[in-house]
Amino acid sequence: MPPPSPSAKTVTRRSIGARQNPEAEAAILSAAVTVLTQKGPKGLTMDAVAREAKAGKATIYRWWPTRGALLVAVYNRIKGDHRHADTGRFESDLATFFDYVFAFWRGDAGRVFALIIAEAQSDADVALALDAYRLERIAAWKEVIARAQKRGEVRANVVPDVLANSIIAVAWYHLITGRLDVGGAQLAAPIAAGWA
Amino acid sequence: MPPPSPSAKTVTRRSIGARQNPEAEAAILSAAVTVLTQKGPKGLTMDAVAREAKAGKATIYRWWPTRGALLVAVYNRIKGDHRHADTGRFESDLATFFDYVFAFWRGDAGRVFALIIAEAQSDADVALALDAYRLERIAAWKEVIARAQKRGEVRANVVPDVLANSIIAVAWYHLITGRLDVGGAQLAAPIAAGWA
Repeated sequence: MPPPSPSAKTVTRRSIGARQNPEAEAAILSAAVTVLTQKGPKGLTMDAVAREAKAGKATIYRWWPTRGALLVAVYNRIKGDHRHADTGRFESDLATFFDYVFAFWRGDAGRVFALIIAEAQSDADVALALDAYRLERIAAWKEVIARAQKRGEVRANVVPDVLANSIIAVAWYHLITGRLDVGGAQLAAPIAAGWA
Repeated sequence: MPPPSPSAKTVTRRSIGARQNPEAEAAILSAAVTVLTQKGPKGLTMDAVAREAKAGKATIYRWWPTRGALLVAVYNRIKGDHRHADTGRFESDLATFFDYVFAFWRGDAGRVFALIIAEAQSDADVALALDAYRLERIAAWKEVIARAQKRGEVRANVVPDVLANSIIAVAWYHLITGRLDVGGAQLAAPIAAGWA
């Protein structure tokens, strides 16, 4: 039996509820970060977050329908808003990305994301939330790749989705094998040359 | 805190003991496969295997010093002896590999290997055993890549280790994101073109 496939369903955060009360959303996420820091990723349960945030569980479930969705939202909050660098060169955009994300993952965030990947292997809700996150990252990479194709740095016949997934594959692989000390330039060079 | 890094230590199976009694080794692995099938990867403990094999725990520990090492040995046993195809073309070698391994992973073995990766994120022994396994696979790929470089299909200045890791990164990424229905040829083409 393969790991749960997230492709059959889709996850949507109930964004209407979130928009109605962004302060409450922020307070709950903040409480979730506290729980995560104190108890680790496995301790991040809906109950623990509700207690810490002094919120009703129904409120939490309204915005994050599963524990997996909440885990990924917490990871996103720790991570902050990250836009891909637009250095004007695809190879430098790639190198900057690897350097940024590996430095970030060498902290607590790496442990959280590695455990999201780990839990996704046996928990279908976490797998779904991870997949939604992955698709967001793929979409962001497609913009970088589109720019690179316009500049002629990436072959026109390259399918952006395939290249985007290859980049993310390399990043995640380094995380899950605990090798985050590689220089971004070293990883970027063969990728940039390979798809040129 | 990043996931446990396996690079600081090395795992060696105590092969002298194994060589002295290959039947006992095979019997224990066979018992471990039974435990795995009945109880899933998390149920594969040294105690459970000892009970199933009617063997002393000391015997098991002599050959597989950690549960992680035993898990990987069991995976290797389910997987059987797999040599990379030598089709005479790098791209077909790659396509054959992806097709083979994805078909294999769509069965129980994929679940076992995904859970080995998952456990490696929080269990240093499993991380070590996984890393030893990864290095074996890298070594096997280096032979395939060396052949491809001799034939001029892969650029001479490509570092085989970097290319080998990229290939494995793509394979593992498809496993952990539950997307094993991709055709090998589709994945092989950009890799082969990219490093040519």
